[in-house]
Amino acid sequence: MNGAESLVRTLSGGGVDVCFANPGTSEMQFVDALDRTRLMRCILGLFEGVVTGAADGYARMSGRPAATLLHLAPGLANASANLHNAKKARVPIVNIVGDHALRHQAYDAPLSADVEGAALPFSDFVRITRSAAEIGADGAETLAAAKSAPGRIATLIAPSDTGWDEGGVVAEPRRPQGPARIDSSALDQAVAALAFGKETMILAGDSILEQDETLALLAGIAEKTGCRVALPSANRRIERGRGRANFPKIPFAVDLALEMLKDVRHVILIMARQPVAFFAYPGKPSTLLPDACSRLTLADMHEDGPDAVRQLADRVGARPAKVKDAPRPVDPQAIPIDYLALEAAIAAALPENAIVVDEGLTSGRGIYDATPGAAPMSWIAITGGSIGIGPPMALGAAIACPDRPVVALQADGSAMYTIQALWSQAREGANVTTVIFANGTYEILKQELFRVGANPGRSALDMLEINRPALDFVSIAKGMGVPGVRVSDAAALVRAIRDSVREPGPKLIEATIV
Amino acid sequence: MNGAESLVRTLSGGGVDVCFANPGTSEMQFVDALDRTRLMRCILGLFEGVVTGAADGYARMSGRPAATLLHLAPGLANASANLHNAKKARVPIVNIVGDHALRHQAYDAPLSADVEGAALPFSDFVRITRSAAEIGADGAETLAAAKSAPGRIATLIAPSDTGWDEGGVVAEPRRPQGPARIDSSALDQAVAALAFGKETMILAGDSILEQDETLALLAGIAEKTGCRVALPSANRRIERGRGRANFPKIPFAVDLALEMLKDVRHVILIMARQPVAFFAYPGKPSTLLPDACSRLTLADMHEDGPDAVRQLADRVGARPAKVKDAPRPVDPQAIPIDYLALEAAIAAALPENAIVVDEGLTSGRGIYDATPGAAPMSWIAITGGSIGIGPPMALGAAIACPDRPVVALQADGSAMYTIQALWSQAREGANVTTVIFANGTYEILKQELFRVGANPGRSALDMLEINRPALDFVSIAKGMGVPGVRVSDAAALVRAIRDSVREPGPKLIEATIV
Repeated sequence: MNGAESLVRTLSGGGVDVCFANPGTSEMQFVDALDRTRLMRCILGLFEGVVTGAADGYARMSGRPAATLLHLAPGLANASANLHNAKKARVPIVNIVGDHALRHQAYDAPLSADVEGAALPFSDFVRITRSAAEIGADGAETLAAAKSAPGRIATLIAPSDTGWDEGGVVAEPRRPQGPARIDSSALDQAVAALAFGKETMILAGDSILEQDETLALLAGIAEKTGCRVALPSANRRIERGRGRANFPKIPFAVDLALEMLKDVRHVILIMARQPVAFFAYPGKPSTLLPDACSRLTLADMHEDGPDAVRQLADRVGARPAKVKDAPRPVDPQAIPIDYLALEAAIAAALPENAIVVDEGLTSGRGIYDATPGAAPMSWIAITGGSIGIGPPMALGAAIACPDRPVVALQADGSAMYTIQALWSQAREGANVTTVIFANGTYEILKQELFRVGANPGRSALDMLEINRPALDFVSIAKGMGVPGVRVSDAAALVRAIRDSVREPGPKLIEATIV
Repeated sequence: MNGAESLVRTLSGGGVDVCFANPGTSEMQFVDALDRTRLMRCILGLFEGVVTGAADGYARMSGRPAATLLHLAPGLANASANLHNAKKARVPIVNIVGDHALRHQAYDAPLSADVEGAALPFSDFVRITRSAAEIGADGAETLAAAKSAPGRIATLIAPSDTGWDEGGVVAEPRRPQGPARIDSSALDQAVAALAFGKETMILAGDSILEQDETLALLAGIAEKTGCRVALPSANRRIERGRGRANFPKIPFAVDLALEMLKDVRHVILIMARQPVAFFAYPGKPSTLLPDACSRLTLADMHEDGPDAVRQLADRVGARPAKVKDAPRPVDPQAIPIDYLALEAAIAAALPENAIVVDEGLTSGRGIYDATPGAAPMSWIAITGGSIGIGPPMALGAAIACPDRPVVALQADGSAMYTIQALWSQAREGANVTTVIFANGTYEILKQELFRVGANPGRSALDMLEINRPALDFVSIAKGMGVPGVRVSDAAALVRAIRDSVREPGPKLIEATIV
């Protein structure tokens, strides 16, 4: 058995059964091994950012790592923006990155570059394998690192000869590092902080938001003690909609966040960090809590947050809260699609049990708050701020959950970074409805330009307009095999979404935002 | 004056007048300064690989660095594949990469990552500026590094407060490091090697290929001494076509390269390195010259290669050779477009004084050898093997030379990595004719799969097909504002290219390859 086959069998034995790939010559022996063993479903991306964004979406919805197959340092670099998002989301991913054969590395061939150096800024774990005999064991270590709490980006660099040489050894799965138990004194302090009622805020993230039980317990703790509960601005996944507790997120805009947090005297962090500004701005603070606010970490990211919630509920005598559902969304009229109409349309049109991919950014910022009464859904959003995650994340979510409708809320500027994902959606028959919020501008940057104190002229604003020429997403989608439609009123948008989720396969809806 | 303005004025004073940009919040003060000063032409890319690929094409044709404006570590990562190509081409580029304000860096905001770590693998020079007072001087140093021989990737990391704080100081241009003089004993040895006539090969690259004088002198040396002259497989720019000396390139395929070089006993390297295999393969050598061949470096990359050619010609009494032109290309018939028909069509259709962008890869590999008798042209090709440089490089070349027609020979798979460049071509009215070689496959990888000794099955080959669904480049181009046409015979391809270069602005021609 060659090294490549031993790696594929090792990862498969550890539960990896999907590989998102954009391979090159130095990975051909892995393509060959994937083909011969038939142990993984292989999904091709036409650009590496598609590959890693899809692996992220897959991991968010399945809870399990996919493998990626990437080509040397430049391929890894192309993959890195969405690895950044995945790293901030704390999802597990196993990257297999080819490199030149060890004997070839001295010669500075054109594709030579520092693969390890390129991997380090965007990985939690990096391993270089040195031989066919070791690649299986190194693969098992890499997989265990990926699966270790709370979820990590683990990268295995595989020189091509470690794949094609004979002598591969399939390795047994290694045990990942599970979540650590929380500190009991922190629990005591949290109970004490809850005595302050509405002066106290619980900020809860990560896996706590993925379980009905912990969400209901959080609501119960709030009911029992009068404390407030909020979520970080961006999260790996939130289970929400009708029948589930709904919690506000910390707003992206610094002034809104400061306003929301100004009366907080005690914060209890459960798998969350203290909220900070997304960016620094002249004359505005970096941290968002009042200076005098006490900060208590009940469970850090590597600790058992769901257990912390259970213990905390138990200590204050809280039970899972009965949810008072928000009103059901009502279908909007055939009005032009401004932000409010967009929010109403999405809330009304979301199908039962949808996976909502949120890269709506400026246009879509109000949709979260408009949808507590919408049909039950999983909500997965951009986490690391590196735009261009939506189209691939939707692909990966659809691969993980083929029977659920995926609705991707997608800003137009961001969509263009990884638009190639549409082709993979078509190829895989992925049940994705992409709604492009076509406002023809990097709207978020226009707002930011004013926030840094500039008094911008025409040419600065022109740098942030993307409507000259207009992007025609329906044609772009057609070019990649995805049928599309353009709508310019809210009722038509609702109809288009409903029509789309009724049929299998991907669709694109370009919604003209006014 | 704030730091951002001092940086823009410093770079402008050093001759930088174009900025390719994909900015984010942390770069808004630079956008503002570019707007207020009006000292640079700003060109927006919808993805960072467009930005750096365009800066590469601009530098290749203008000989001068453009600035790029990139957003934090993920933006830099997206830019890095084409920085890799530019680094291997040894072109000058000045990257300005924003980072969080210094005071904000402690807080692990979502977009935090190691910008310097991400920059190092793909830059020759990295500088982090620390204050508005220093950013001008740091910018001058960075620009001088970019311009130093033979051309370097120089990256300035600018925390946002170094841009928006007052106290900026415009810095005088620093003197770049010019090319070093060659060693006179190497010249003696080169003269001695040339006494062996056809057993000796000159391998010449870089700026030698950009000047009619040095090309003619190389041909004169070959005429006088009987030596052979060859070029590296990939080069920054070659001036060629009717009236100019034509030299063969070392083939990409190892077996063809070994065959070409098997009788070489002495090699003289002038701004070139010894030829090595693009990739390692089982059972094939990494280096391509016979073991017994003597290797002499007359001018290394940082040395004055054109001067070395002049001195060498002088020592052997060679004069610029009169070129015997290859036959003029003849228009092909209306036959299906196989590789030979493609070569004939491109050779016939290339307009006078074209800039040919070569990312034709497998389908286009024969075009170089088919075009010595075509109209005079500049030939710029992918250098670092990281695919997806063609569409942006064509954009940058058109910005540098607005009065010359740019013809981009473009493999379909590679085009998809940076297809967003079409939009910038449309926005800038760039005179680019992109010819997509639509064979519906990663053909190069299929060949490579066999070269690593695999016996691939259907699913492995399926991973390398990109025709399910078919990519419709005419629709994709339309979606980005570029008119397109599809052709399926060689005569129609010639007509389409001729029609396209007659009109201003970008066009796309999808040529169906059989």
